[in-house]
Amino acid sequence: MDYAGRLRRMQAALPENKLDFLLVTHLPNICYLSGFTGSAAALLISGRGATLFTDGRYIAQARQQVRGASIVIVSKSPQVAAAEWLIAKRKSAASRSLFLGFEPEVLTAGMHVRLAAILRGKVRLCSAPPLIERARTVKDREEIHCIRAAVELGATLFRVGRKKIRPGVPEVEVAAAMEYQARCQGAEGMSFPTILAAGERSAVVHGRASAARISRRGFVVCDFGVILAGYCSDRTRTVHVGKPTQDARQFYEAVREAQEAAIAAVRPGVTAAEVDEAARGVLRKRKLAQYFTHSTGHGLGLEIHEAPRLAVGQAQKLESGMVVTIEPGAYIPGKWGVRIEDVVVVTSSGCEVLAPSDKDLIVI
Amino acid sequence: MDYAGRLRRMQAALPENKLDFLLVTHLPNICYLSGFTGSAAALLISGRGATLFTDGRYIAQARQQVRGASIVIVSKSPQVAAAEWLIAKRKSAASRSLFLGFEPEVLTAGMHVRLAAILRGKVRLCSAPPLIERARTVKDREEIHCIRAAVELGATLFRVGRKKIRPGVPEVEVAAAMEYQARCQGAEGMSFPTILAAGERSAVVHGRASAARISRRGFVVCDFGVILAGYCSDRTRTVHVGKPTQDARQFYEAVREAQEAAIAAVRPGVTAAEVDEAARGVLRKRKLAQYFTHSTGHGLGLEIHEAPRLAVGQAQKLESGMVVTIEPGAYIPGKWGVRIEDVVVVTSSGCEVLAPSDKDLIVI
Repeated sequence: MDYAGRLRRMQAALPENKLDFLLVTHLPNICYLSGFTGSAAALLISGRGATLFTDGRYIAQARQQVRGASIVIVSKSPQVAAAEWLIAKRKSAASRSLFLGFEPEVLTAGMHVRLAAILRGKVRLCSAPPLIERARTVKDREEIHCIRAAVELGATLFRVGRKKIRPGVPEVEVAAAMEYQARCQGAEGMSFPTILAAGERSAVVHGRASAARISRRGFVVCDFGVILAGYCSDRTRTVHVGKPTQDARQFYEAVREAQEAAIAAVRPGVTAAEVDEAARGVLRKRKLAQYFTHSTGHGLGLEIHEAPRLAVGQAQKLESGMVVTIEPGAYIPGKWGVRIEDVVVVTSSGCEVLAPSDKDLIVI
Repeated sequence: MDYAGRLRRMQAALPENKLDFLLVTHLPNICYLSGFTGSAAALLISGRGATLFTDGRYIAQARQQVRGASIVIVSKSPQVAAAEWLIAKRKSAASRSLFLGFEPEVLTAGMHVRLAAILRGKVRLCSAPPLIERARTVKDREEIHCIRAAVELGATLFRVGRKKIRPGVPEVEVAAAMEYQARCQGAEGMSFPTILAAGERSAVVHGRASAARISRRGFVVCDFGVILAGYCSDRTRTVHVGKPTQDARQFYEAVREAQEAAIAAVRPGVTAAEVDEAARGVLRKRKLAQYFTHSTGHGLGLEIHEAPRLAVGQAQKLESGMVVTIEPGAYIPGKWGVRIEDVVVVTSSGCEVLAPSDKDLIVI
């Protein structure tokens, strides 16, 4: 990964944001900029360089992973250590006040107080804009390679899952078989708790696999993702157990049409809201819009949910290299629900669906 | 669970902490006080009652789970909604300044700024002490029942794992089999990423199961836990593949003796540091203290790591009803490592080991 380039771009962004330093404490951001994946760290960026603070558990790992930043091993909170280190350096520096940007949606209020006490006004804490999150929305070639591998691995899980889906089988057993497959193929873990929701439960948008047994007839929503080499996948397929009614088939086809319309709408320059509307418009025509209770999709990468959000009112324009999910659904409480989801990469002229598959309704 | 009693005790604690309200934003704390397990919520406690704020995804779930608090469904951040609700109520209230406690180690600095802007000095934000975390250290009968069930389920995973451990098998396949077993038995998931570290990797304290194959000879550390009905388990067993040397046997026995000494030291009134020293002292006599690089244990319950910490310098006294892990280990980098861990409940006269098992060295 191009850690050096990413760090350089952040350093270049400091002056225009009126910052002398940036204290990165969101672990996925630290990983993005330095390659470090440990569970305790702070990354201090200045115009001249970057320093990673972590603890004794991660000496070997930090040396192996970190590129472009010097490493300081500490025996206290990495954030506190970074502030103390900065003040110690400050002694010999210029007399004007210096500005240290922090990540306001990550740093806790308690840590903010502790850091301010250490910095004693000599270095002033400023809420930084989401510079790194913005950079992360557009993936580079290596990242797309990783996401593609994760999505392709993820796609194989459904083949395992659909064989397991039978009336009377507990939802959780299907999920367990899929997760076992993921692990055996090298996934570090699942990118979120596996959703496996059968029968009436298919109408529960976040219906985590439960002990409930799959009923004799009805939809089964399978929404699952893996983490592979640090990158997330996300995919949803909905199957039908037993012979579907005409109504059920039409319901499924409406969601499928909405999903395909949203995929067709993805290209550089369109807004996130326009992609959402492409799906929502199809469901509106079918009088199902009121059952589409969530947004059409989200970015993904090092985290399962990243910017942009493909939702009503989102004016952010898509750019080539963004990677987003397209996952409209419709849910009638107490009756049924359907969701279909793919991950797509925005290309120069449209988008590429990763691990594309036939989406005809599978009847089990 | 005794949600009503827990809430009542928090309400009673407000005046002595000079608080009119407490805004609970740490999700495990919300679950502890109200039973709610959704992923977005804020719980506002006053002297007279409690109100849970969550979003439209959780209408049915909140109604089903929440006891003792009224429910407000919102379409924005639950924390922001709670502050706005409080200000709206405030209009008709007394003229003195009111104090709203928040959880400083959970609330972000950004959210703190937003809440202060909403409250405009009419209600003042104050950093609250960890009242709920303190209450959670001592488990009630129902909680101990849940933890016991989780630990007993967890114990069965090792029987699956040890059958899978063979030279040449990837670590991750052993972990996958254990996790599959956990899921099939009804676990919601694992309480932390499964550690399976074979050969030289056994010296890596947090050696997550990797693609590395189990070597022909050496220790294999298995550290694993499940979440069952919301409560965590945690257990470590170390086995040896191939005939152990005399040195390896003695190393294992030293850790085992340290673990048994720490268990024997647990009773109400001893400090967390004294339990740690019981283990550390045994390893010191064996000239292995420098290889014991972490603490002896930690509380567990709704979270995998809770207070108290059984570590050097921890003056906190153990109380009947606390549930802690006892997990000394010793690790020689590049050579090997051993850790043995049980969960114990502090009783009136000592402690009870949950799901006790023989700890003779298993040779595979």
